[in-house]
Amino acid sequence: MTPKSQKHWTGDVGDLLRVGPGFRLDRVDAGATPGYGRRKRDSIDDLVAGSDELSELQERLYAASRADAAGAAVLLVLQAMDTAGKGGIIRHVVGSVDPQGVQLVAFKKPTAEELAHDFLWRIRAHVPTAGMIGVFDRSHYEDVLIGKVRALASADEIERRYGAINDFERELSASGTRIVKVMLHISADEQRDRLMDRLDRPDKHWKYNPGDVDERMLWPAYMDAYQAVFERTSTEVAPWHVVPADRKWYARLAVQALLLDALQEIDPRWPAAQFDVAAERDRLRAS
Amino acid sequence: MTPKSQKHWTGDVGDLLRVGPGFRLDRVDAGATPGYGRRKRDSIDDLVAGSDELSELQERLYAASRADAAGAAVLLVLQAMDTAGKGGIIRHVVGSVDPQGVQLVAFKKPTAEELAHDFLWRIRAHVPTAGMIGVFDRSHYEDVLIGKVRALASADEIERRYGAINDFERELSASGTRIVKVMLHISADEQRDRLMDRLDRPDKHWKYNPGDVDERMLWPAYMDAYQAVFERTSTEVAPWHVVPADRKWYARLAVQALLLDALQEIDPRWPAAQFDVAAERDRLRAS
Repeated sequence: MTPKSQKHWTGDVGDLLRVGPGFRLDRVDAGATPGYGRRKRDSIDDLVAGSDELSELQERLYAASRADAAGAAVLLVLQAMDTAGKGGIIRHVVGSVDPQGVQLVAFKKPTAEELAHDFLWRIRAHVPTAGMIGVFDRSHYEDVLIGKVRALASADEIERRYGAINDFERELSASGTRIVKVMLHISADEQRDRLMDRLDRPDKHWKYNPGDVDERMLWPAYMDAYQAVFERTSTEVAPWHVVPADRKWYARLAVQALLLDALQEIDPRWPAAQFDVAAERDRLRAS
Repeated sequence: MTPKSQKHWTGDVGDLLRVGPGFRLDRVDAGATPGYGRRKRDSIDDLVAGSDELSELQERLYAASRADAAGAAVLLVLQAMDTAGKGGIIRHVVGSVDPQGVQLVAFKKPTAEELAHDFLWRIRAHVPTAGMIGVFDRSHYEDVLIGKVRALASADEIERRYGAINDFERELSASGTRIVKVMLHISADEQRDRLMDRLDRPDKHWKYNPGDVDERMLWPAYMDAYQAVFERTSTEVAPWHVVPADRKWYARLAVQALLLDALQEIDPRWPAAQFDVAAERDRLRAS
């Protein structure tokens, strides 16, 4: 963990959360705070310090792409059960950088037109352009999660999709996009509390959907589907990270750290002027 | 000015900045701070207070649209000469609200495909959906600004466009979108200073484009084109506001106030639950 704002980590958060061989989702403690040695009340300052660094790196990434149209990009893929906090990550982590450098896409239930194409068709249309931080709020992984749990596709087709996803992500990575895949992991009990909170507060009723409880009843099937996703699609170029998310403040810090890591590895530089600076000064002075 | 965070205004900033009959751009002082009685150093706290209020209103606007797909939206149209601070407005004012509630579009030089359609074709494709705050970084007004100054269209066609714009905006307004049109107004001297600053700082070179000086040399023609825009398209449903922008901090506060005004007039409410709250509590408890 190189960024100077990230000294509060006691270990490499990327390594700690990365899905590797033998990973078991059912052994992850959703209430844990791996690698973070300080308390919740310190986390606010740490998040602000990280935001400043993220903002600067984002601006450099964007600037670098102005001189190199084939430059680097970042893609954050967010997957989670309902209420796990995707929205909070987008608001508090992604929302801390300049909106002009972010391409945010929320993938909903596919439309009839989208269903008439291969499942990656709508995804490809939204991959981030050079210099941008793309954010997928849900993604192509829905097609092997709800797609599997609710048998929206045949078992053979689900199998095919794992391979198609790996090919797609390898290609995206080869074209200069760093892929950061995150599953926010909450416990079933925490989800019940959060859904109950939405029922208890009239200003949160709009966030509640009875269908969320229907999905909740399929919790074990979803966990199995996530486990399969991790086994089949956590690759060298696009590894998964499972972020314990019962503590929202930890999940935000951790996702911020993963984004900082990705940007530090790109190490974007201010591009050199593509014009004669002295001559431009003269023109400007005369204008 | 009703919002509680907006007590620092000594007058109604919307009224003060609105373009009405007899408006003359050449009489606007770009360094003025109409309606603001406090100092620059107070403006930071005032901007933060306004951000909190803007965030809450944005969330209500979004929530209200979940229950009413034909609900209200806001469209902020930003026009300005180069360096006037559109980017800063997007970052510091728009960037203070949840990115999930914002649809930001930067309109660049039209592509060949866009040019093959009517000038409003690409604009219509990006009007905000219900519940969203749309932001146009440049807009259909380019087609009667650079379009006029550089004679990219005939005089007859420019004339036609004023009418087409008014029709389009009337239709948009009738469908529930509140339109907030802002020209950020800087002086030519301030622009020279800002462009020079970009030349003086290697980390700002990427923001400098020699073409900006070419446009700068047409300053009087641009001011005439803006004056014509104001005379022809500052309508009841979509009035223009000219925001003095030599002081960036003032421009940000003023645009924030205009957005707050628009949202207060919509007065979005938390929608009522479309389900049986008690029954859902029981289902959830049993799950």
